[in-house]
This record gives sequence, C-alpha cells and structure tokens, in this order.
Amino acid sequence: MKIAVLMGSKSDLPVLEESTAVLRQFGVACEMRILSAHRTPDEVTELARSARENGFGAIIAGAGMSAHLAGVIAAHTTLPVIAVPIDASSLNGLDALLSMVQMPPGIPVATMGIGKAGAKNAALLAISILSLSDQSLKSKLDLYRQDMKKTVLEADEGIRKL
Amino acid sequence: MKIAVLMGSKSDLPVLEESTAVLRQFGVACEMRILSAHRTPDEVTELARSARENGFGAIIAGAGMSAHLAGVIAAHTTLPVIAVPIDASSLNGLDALLSMVQMPPGIPVATMGIGKAGAKNAALLAISILSLSDQSLKSKLDLYRQDMKKTVLEADEGIRKL
Amino acid sequence: MKIAVLMGSKSDLPVLEESTAVLRQFGVACEMRILSAHRTPDEVTELARSARENGFGAIIAGAGMSAHLAGVIAAHTTLPVIAVPIDASSLNGLDALLSMVQMPPGIPVATMGIGKAGAKNAALLAISILSLSDQSLKSKLDLYRQDMKKTVLEADEGIRKL
Amino acid sequence: MKIAVLMGSKSDLPVLEESTAVLRQFGVACEMRILSAHRTPDEVTELARSARENGFGAIIAGAGMSAHLAGVIAAHTTLPVIAVPIDASSLNGLDALLSMVQMPPGIPVATMGIGKAGAKNAALLAISILSLSDQSLKSKLDLYRQDMKKTVLEADEGIRKL
Amino acid sequence: MKIAVLMGSKSDLPVLEESTAVLRQFGVACEMRILSAHRTPDEVTELARSARENGFGAIIAGAGMSAHLAGVIAAHTTLPVIAVPIDASSLNGLDALLSMVQMPPGIPVATMGIGKAGAKNAALLAISILSLSDQSLKSKLDLYRQDMKKTVLEADEGIRKL
Amino acid sequence: MKIAVLMGSKSDLPVLEESTAVLRQFGVACEMRILSAHRTPDEVTELARSARENGFGAIIAGAGMSAHLAGVIAAHTTLPVIAVPIDASSLNGLDALLSMVQMPPGIPVATMGIGKAGAKNAALLAISILSLSDQSLKSKLDLYRQDMKKTVLEADEGIRKL
Amino acid sequence: MKIAVLMGSKSDLPVLEESTAVLRQFGVACEMRILSAHRTPDEVTELARSARENGFGAIIAGAGMSAHLAGVIAAHTTLPVIAVPIDASSLNGLDALLSMVQMPPGIPVATMGIGKAGAKNAALLAISILSLSDQSLKSKLDLYRQDMKKTVLEADEGIRKL
Amino acid sequence: MKIAVLMGSKSDLPVLEESTAVLRQFGVACEMRILSAHRTPDEVTELARSARENGFGAIIAGAGMSAHLAGVIAAHTTLPVIAVPIDASSLNGLDALLSMVQMPPGIPVATMGIGKAGAKNAALLAISILSLSDQSLKSKLDLYRQDMKKTVLEADEGIRKL
Repeated sequence: MKIAVLMGSKSDLPVLEESTAVLRQFGVACEMRILSAHRTPDEVTELARSARENGFGAIIAGAGMSAHLAGVIAAHTTLPVIAVPIDASSLNGLDALLSMVQMPPGIPVATMGIGKAGAKNAALLAISILSLSDQSLKSKLDLYRQDMKKTVLEADEGIRKL
Repeated sequence: MKIAVLMGSKSDLPVLEESTAVLRQFGVACEMRILSAHRTPDEVTELARSARENGFGAIIAGAGMSAHLAGVIAAHTTLPVIAVPIDASSLNGLDALLSMVQMPPGIPVATMGIGKAGAKNAALLAISILSLSDQSLKSKLDLYRQDMKKTVLEADEGIRKL
Repeated sequence: MKIAVLMGSKSDLPVLEESTAVLRQFGVACEMRILSAHRTPDEVTELARSARENGFGAIIAGAGMSAHLAGVIAAHTTLPVIAVPIDASSLNGLDALLSMVQMPPGIPVATMGIGKAGAKNAALLAISILSLSDQSLKSKLDLYRQDMKKTVLEADEGIRKL
Repeated sequence: MKIAVLMGSKSDLPVLEESTAVLRQFGVACEMRILSAHRTPDEVTELARSARENGFGAIIAGAGMSAHLAGVIAAHTTLPVIAVPIDASSLNGLDALLSMVQMPPGIPVATMGIGKAGAKNAALLAISILSLSDQSLKSKLDLYRQDMKKTVLEADEGIRKL
Repeated sequence: MKIAVLMGSKSDLPVLEESTAVLRQFGVACEMRILSAHRTPDEVTELARSARENGFGAIIAGAGMSAHLAGVIAAHTTLPVIAVPIDASSLNGLDALLSMVQMPPGIPVATMGIGKAGAKNAALLAISILSLSDQSLKSKLDLYRQDMKKTVLEADEGIRKL
Repeated sequence: MKIAVLMGSKSDLPVLEESTAVLRQFGVACEMRILSAHRTPDEVTELARSARENGFGAIIAGAGMSAHLAGVIAAHTTLPVIAVPIDASSLNGLDALLSMVQMPPGIPVATMGIGKAGAKNAALLAISILSLSDQSLKSKLDLYRQDMKKTVLEADEGIRKL
Repeated sequence: MKIAVLMGSKSDLPVLEESTAVLRQFGVACEMRILSAHRTPDEVTELARSARENGFGAIIAGAGMSAHLAGVIAAHTTLPVIAVPIDASSLNGLDALLSMVQMPPGIPVATMGIGKAGAKNAALLAISILSLSDQSLKSKLDLYRQDMKKTVLEADEGIRKL
Repeated sequence: MKIAVLMGSKSDLPVLEESTAVLRQFGVACEMRILSAHRTPDEVTELARSARENGFGAIIAGAGMSAHLAGVIAAHTTLPVIAVPIDASSLNGLDALLSMVQMPPGIPVATMGIGKAGAKNAALLAISILSLSDQSLKSKLDLYRQDMKKTVLEADEGIRKL
C-alpha cells in the first residue's frame, strides 16, 4: 500500500518533505500532492474518495492557518488520515493545530505535532499502520528505534566524557 | 435576497436562532439548514454552489470545535460567508474561532464573535450587506441602532437615579 | 460603490496594501486613509458617518494591539465593516484579533485573519459584497478562483513529476 | 474631585458596584453611568470631553468582550482612565483584558485585573490618585491597609490555633 | 486484532467508554485497562512491549493533566498509539493536549480531540486502521458514515419544516 | 512631584527609557532606579515606603517574567503604582502581564501594555495623574494630543495623495 | 525539620489542606499560616527570614491571581520554596502558574500543578527533600508509592473483569 | 551528594549547561546525561531507579515539546526531581511547561521557568535542597545572594548617576 502525502500549498513542501524522506528510507511508496481544501476542493474530494481503491493505505495532510485539509479529506474517505499542523501565521501553528485536532465526533483525524517533527512522525505512524500487515516494516521500525537509541547513547557517552 | 443560516449540528440551534430571530425582525427571508462539513460534505457543497442562483445574498455558518463549515462553504461560492464560532468543547470556542478566522489568502470568511453575540451580529452583518441595495433595510438598521441607543440611555437614566 | 481602506498607523501600510492591490486588480475604486481611533477620533467618526452617502459600500479597517478602529467605525455606520487584525506587539496579533472579533451584540464587525492574508481576504470579501449587485464583479471573482485553482494544480503537477 | 464609574452594559453592574462601594466607604463622590462605546458613542464622547471641567478626577470604565469603552474614553480626555475588564464571554475575560491593556502608544489606560477584584482595585487606584492632593484620603488609605492587614493576621491566628 | 483501551485513572472511565462503545458496535474486540504512566510504570511498559505479540493492532490511551501515558506507551511499542487528551484540571484539557500531541520526532502518537469526542474518534481511527486488512470493517465504516449522514439529513429536514 | 522609574534589571533599560523620555519632554522630574523585588527586596521596600515623603507622585515599575516588582512596591505604598510588563522570556511578555495585572483585591497596580508602548503610556498616565493639580501639565497633555493628531493627519494626507 | 504551609488568603485553605493532610500522614510536622505578600508583607518577610533557624526544611506557598507569595518568600530565604498556583480568577489559574513558575534567574521557586493536585504534590516534594537525610521518610515514600500502585492495579483488575 | 543533570536531546545542552555552571560554581558534584524518555526509556528508568543509591541527591531533567522526561524519572525515584521546560517548538515552551508542571497527584515534579533562567534556578534549587544538611552550601547560597544584590545595587548606582 502507498501513502499519499498532501499539502495545502507549495510553501508547505519543506515541512512535508520530512514525511517523504522517512517513507523512502523505509521503502514505502508515496505520492506527493499539492491540493488546497479551499482552492481546489473538487480535486481534494476526488483524491480522498478514490484513495482506497487507488492503493493508498493512509493519507498524510499538512496545512497551516485554518487548516481544513485533513478534515475535508477525512470526510470523504474511511482510510486513516494523518494531520500535520504547519506554523504558517503569526499564531505559531496553534491555529492549525486546533483546526485539525478538535474534529467533531464521527470523523477521526490523527493529529501530529506542529511542523517538521510532526511531519516526520506522520510518516512513522503511517509505517506503523502498514506494519500491522507487513512484517518487514515491523522489523524496519525496530531497527529504526535501535538506531535512534544508539544515537542517543552515543551522545550520552560523549557528554559523560566531558 | 434570502439569507441561509446553516449549522453543523442540531445542538447548535440555540445559538443560530439568534441569527434567525434578528433576520425575521428585519423582515429578511431566511432558510435554516443543518448540514455538516464532515458528515454531509456533498450536501454542503451543493448548497454552497447553488446558493447565489437560488437567491441567497449571504450564508451564515455556525459550527464548533474544528469548525470547517464556513471555510468549506466559502470554497464553493463567491457569496459573502459569515462564520459564527460556537463554544462546543472544553476549549471555550477558541478552537472554532481559530478554525474559522485564520482562513488562508484567497477565500474570505467574515468571522463573528463566539456564540450568541456572534450569531446576532452575523444577522446584522447580513442585513448590512443587503442594505447596500435595499434602502428600507438601511432605514431599519438606523431604527435598530436608535432602539439600542434608547435602551442604553434608559438604563443610564435608571442608574443615575440610584 | 467604493471601498474605504483604513489603517490606524502608517506602519500598517504594508499589510493594508494587500487589500488595495486586490481591489485595484478587480477594478474596484478604493480610498486609503490613515486615521487612529485614539489619536484622531473625530476624523474617524466623521469618515464613518458620511461613508454611505459618500459612495462607500464597505470599510476595511486594519489595526494592531488593542485594535478599536473597526469597532469605533462600526459604531457610526451601518455599512459592512471588515476588520484586519495586525501583528503589532509581542502577542502575535492575538490582542488585535480578540479586540476586533469579540464585538458585543448589536454592532457587527466582519473579522479576517491576522496580517497580510487577512488583508487580502478583506478585499475579496468587500468585492464579494459588491458582487451582489454587480454581475461583472461576480464574473471576476469566478475568474480569480479559477486562477487560484490553476496555480495550485500547476504546483501539483510540478510536484508529481518529481 | 469626583470619580465617574462607567459601564458598557447594565449586566456589568454587579462588577462595577465593587468600585462604588469602595468609593463610598472612602467618602469619595462618584457617579455611575451606563454608556456603550458602540451603541451610544456620542454620549461616551461627551462624557469624556467634559469630565475634567465637570469636576471628575478619574474615570473608571468596565466592559467585556471587545472592550473598547476605556480606550474610547481615553481618546477624548487627558484625565486618568482606569479600565476594568469583565468576563462576559466564553473566553473568560481574556478578550476584554487584551482589548484594554494593549493600548497603542500615546493614549494610556490603567488596566486592572478581570472582574470584581479589578473593580475594587480600580476604586482604590482612583483614591490613591486623589490622595496626592487630599491628605485625608492618604490617611484613610493607610487605615484601609491596616484593616486588611488585621483581617489577614486574625485569619492567621485562627489557623495557627487549629 | 484487538484494540487496547487504556486510561491513566479510574476517573477517566466515562470518557474512554466512548471508545469501547464504538469498538463493540463494530464488533472489534477490545480490552480496557487502568494503568498509570507514573504510578504503575512497569505495568505500562509490559503492556506496551507485549501488545503486538498479544494480538493488539492499536492502543488507545486516555489521560489528563501532564498526560504522559500515550508517549510512554509509544516508547515501548511500534504499534499505532492513539491518544485521547482528557479535561482533568482547570486548564480545560489544553495541558493534556499539548502533553500528547507535541511528541518529539521519532515516536509518533496519533492525537485526537479533547474528551468524549476524541475518545469516539480514537475508536473510529483504530477501526479505520484495522479496515486496511479487514474488508468487513471497511463496509461497516461506510455504513456508519451513511448512518451519520442520515441523522444529519433528518435533522435538516426537521428544521426546514419549521 | 517627581516620578520614580524603576526596573528589575539593567536589561530592561531600553524599555523604561521610553518612560523617562516622555517625562523629560513634559518637564516632569524623574529618578531612574534598578532594583529587583527578588534580589534586593529590602531596597525595594525602602524605596516604596519612603516614596511619598520623598516627593514622588507615582512609581513606574517595569519587569519581565514572573514580574513581582510592581506588586511588591504597591504593598508598601499607597501612591499610584504603574506597571510595565516586559517581554523577557519565550512567553512574549504574557507571563509578566498576568503577574502584574491580576492583582488580588486591595492592592491596585495600574497595568500598561507590554514593552515600549506600555512604557510610553506609563509616563503619560503619570503625567495625567499629576495634571490633576498642575494646570500646565494639563495644557501640555492637550498639546501632546494635538501633535499626535497632526502627525496622523499628515500621514493621512500623504497617503491620500498616492 | 518542619514544613511551613503558607497561603495568601483564607479562601485558599481547601487547596492547601491537601498539603497538610499528606504531611500528617507521613508524620512530618507542619505549621499552617495565612499571610499575604501584599497585605502583610512584613510578616511574610519575617517568616521567610527566620524559617531556617526556626527549624523549617521547606516552605510551601499557595496563592492565586498575580501570585507573588512564593517569589517574595524565596527572596528572603535560601530554603527550598514550593509554589502551589491556585485557580482563583476567571483565568483558570494560568495567571497564578505564570506568576510563580517564570521566576527570574537567581531565585528558584519549585512550582507544582494548579490546585489540589499541586498541593498534594507540594507535600510529597517536601517529604522527598527531607528524605535525603531521613531514612524513615524514604521508606514511607516507598510504601506510599506501593499503595498508589496497588490502588491502580485493583482498579485495573476491576475493569478487566467487566 | 551529587546532582544528575539530564537532558532529552543533545540540542538541549546550551540550556542545561546553565545548571552545571552553577553547580560547579558551588562545588557540587554533578553528572550530565543525555537520555530520552521516548528513545531510551530503559536507560532513563535505570538511571532513576539507582539514583539514590548511586549518591544522587536530586535529578534535574530538561526537555522540550511533550516533555515527559521529568515525569518518567519521577515515576521511578522518590528523590526530588527538578524539571526545566525547554523552548524547542513553535509553541515557545508552553508545551514543555504544561507537560511538566501539571503532574497528576502522587508524583511531584519541581518545575522551573522555561529555558536558561529555569536551568540556572534548577541548580540553585538543588543546592538549596542539599544545603539542608550541608552548612557550607548554606553559606555559599548566602554569599551568592549577596553577590546578586551587589550587582543590582551597582547597576542602580550607575543609573542614578546618569
């Protein structure tokens, strides 16, 4: 299964590239799309509606300000939708976070942290979802965790020598 | 021209009735609708797309939490869209306010205050818009302002006598 | 009908120019003014009171901090008043947003997002209002939407080729 | 010199009565007024403009939501203006606080805490101001402080006996 | 695959029951647990570590205040972890929301809205995840969406008759 | 009467110089002091206690973070105390604002806006207070207002010519 | 060593009793005091200055609004000062939290969560501090933890049986 | 007794070095560690569990975002745990502050201010704790306070000469 990585504006690309970098590192196929819930609502609807039959297993949607993209996607698919709030106004991304996470009951959106950390985690959540039916991804996640642990322990060793 | 008064959930009715009460007081035709951006996205789209040709002059949309209703409406019409954030979660309506007011450039949403005060003002803004081409509404707005003034001055007189 | 574009301080000009740029693009006449609710209250009152008879169809008012400009304007006219909160303090524009959007019942102010995005949308809302009685503006809004859509779809095409 | 105690709405009375109770306790003349910056702007202007010559030494102004009352008063007088933000919306008075305290440079407003505590302190600040030229008020303030101290120390004694 | 529904305290039960009610409605097996990240850290670790091999497909974790439960779970499993922030302090659940959603890069937590709406959506997200490899759940999700739509449209019909 | 201009740290000087610049412009004597409520509590107490007899008419106190300076001063004098919250942490001055403005009942602190605008207004409020018994300051305040008005109107004229 | 449990107002008693209840449960001597940083500053100073020689090992200070009590105490002693922010205004205790936790460098205050949970933890922190030189308190803390664990596990067992 | 100074990531080093600098200035032994609650949970648990027997008297833990480090440490030790929230996201450290300070009842965490000021105070609190059984540290704290006082008074003298 592939992962769709969607963003509301070209300026969101540096954030969402954190998602695609992780997906590629794990060998998970992904497609990047730039589509706006407000400026291209029909294309967003079409993408969401056909995503499952098109072989997608989850949709990552990043947007800023009154970030409706993930919610609009979720209204048109029952696939897992993962939201990445982006800091794109003077309000530090709090506007995007609340626009995404406070979804009314019935239409879930899996919300990540604001910005690049959230985008990275969005990919890892997508991989975690796919790992339920893909043992190799499960193993890669374990290795990824071990690498992270190793990096921390090396930094720890370095600082203890100071 | 009529005004559409839309809400995302039946529980929003007590708030939006503040809008319809004012519209009726001014003799402005209005239609109340309950439609959810997430649960009935197609109906919302259809309402928005046909609103201008159906004789609407503005659309009032009230919603709570991650309130996408007004933005989704605005994506499908160039009529004025007036948003009423509703306090429907533990976050006091701040979630709905930011989900509505921080619209990205290109798709405007005229946001009111949270709750009943905002719903009342939404109707008055709609009437103000219609008054540009309806002299009788302009006169009624002037009278409404005079009534408000009179109420305040009577309260003032009352308190000065204490 | 003309649009008044008002700002509380000369330093707000870069924000409000987003409004006038859009208005000019649509061929809508506009007048820029710098008037402060606190430093020139009489001139603000005079502008608001005479705006309708002077041929204005809406007033855009941008201000920062305890942004009273739009509310004071709205107290003196029944024309649509459109508020643009400006980020002009350490509080990121949240002070201006709440000073504008939380108007008490009776005096509506149509509040946009903070800063340049809000200023652009203020102009588009004003045009939307004028479009109710000006078919050519309605057509231009449709074209503007199509252009926005085209820009997004081109970006989408670009990213899909990567 | 008298103190004007102004509120934007009759519903603010329970809060502002905290101010008048303190003023009366100190024997300071005060006049309560209900006037709205938005619904009776001319009367607010008139009150502010004539306040100094009418024998007022300070103006206390309480309001909720987008609380413009104190700022509008301050725009029309160089008397000390004391603002009491009132919790009159779902936002807990934060809207009123920011609408009052973040005044742009040039027009000061002395802002108190939200609600009854702030209203009480507004009166005490007004008395403090008058005490600069009224030795008896200075003495009464000292006594008031001693009474407060005594009350605390009695409570302290009570709890130490437990 | 089963879903674990974990809460940090017995007082969180009314919120998390929203999750189990939905899971049971869909015929998805679930196990409720009360375990605290701070008071029973070893049991939390043990549950997380063994969850995948014990047949769980996702873990829903609800907690309030400095809500570490979901993050601690996620540190010990690569299964999808779904967080439900609970309003359990004077800060309206904002503390729990930020404690859950702002996870550092590397360890994803899928955060829902605050309280019962979030708990309901947590179950729906879990079902959505399981639906990737369970066609019958996919069909049930479609029916669930249709039911929601029908409920809204009936409410809409009701209000239009008024 | 003189005005004391107090700051909690040398780093606050650029902010508080806005106060002294205005005071000097009006010919009001002032004394700058650097004293910390936490590091030099005795000196702060001494300054506050003797301020009235030393000929001060008001005390301006600027501080950042958990800004206790103004409150501690106010605990030891019945002179008007004017607080200037300073943006000296990552929280944008909101910490200092709330530490100053939310004083418990009994001890008033006249709080200004955050930073330089607030410091300027602090001086103007102090002058306004002194103007109650100093006709020349009243006249200077009128002139200051006229100058501000003139500056705005010139900017207005400039922009209208564009 | 004893623990001082100080509160700014009698109304804070229900919160701070959470502290004394825990201290008594552990057999740690404590003294409750009601003293206000603003209304009885001298008594607060005296208590703080003499606390170490009077046999206190830590001071717990609870207060609401612009909560200066803990900071003022800390300015006069080098004993550990533990702050309990209290929700005593419309701002939900956020004002007290920021007034306590954002202490400038040099004068530490150990801040707990808002309200009763924080008061309970304040006592546990004080006991933890005393446990460094009191082996029996260390053992009691271990037992306390075991009891908490047992309570959680019993609740867990109860819910698993459902 | 030694102090452990722990951070969740190498990038937190510039903040936590404020802690170690103070500890070294006081001659208190300390050990810096880089360990992540999420990436190296076992090592964090091990450190916490053995800290008391390894001769530590307190643990300082700094982290950003959903900062669970201090809470996880506190779950595994009854030593005093001191938390330093770090500004490591777009939310200015408010996320880390709430993730640390709002601990549920039973497991205390002594929270400092955000960033370097907090890190400095964390060390001073640790020293304050150790000073209960180490008279020389008590004396050094007194000298430290005197130095701070002297620095402020010199700055005061400098500004008074201006």
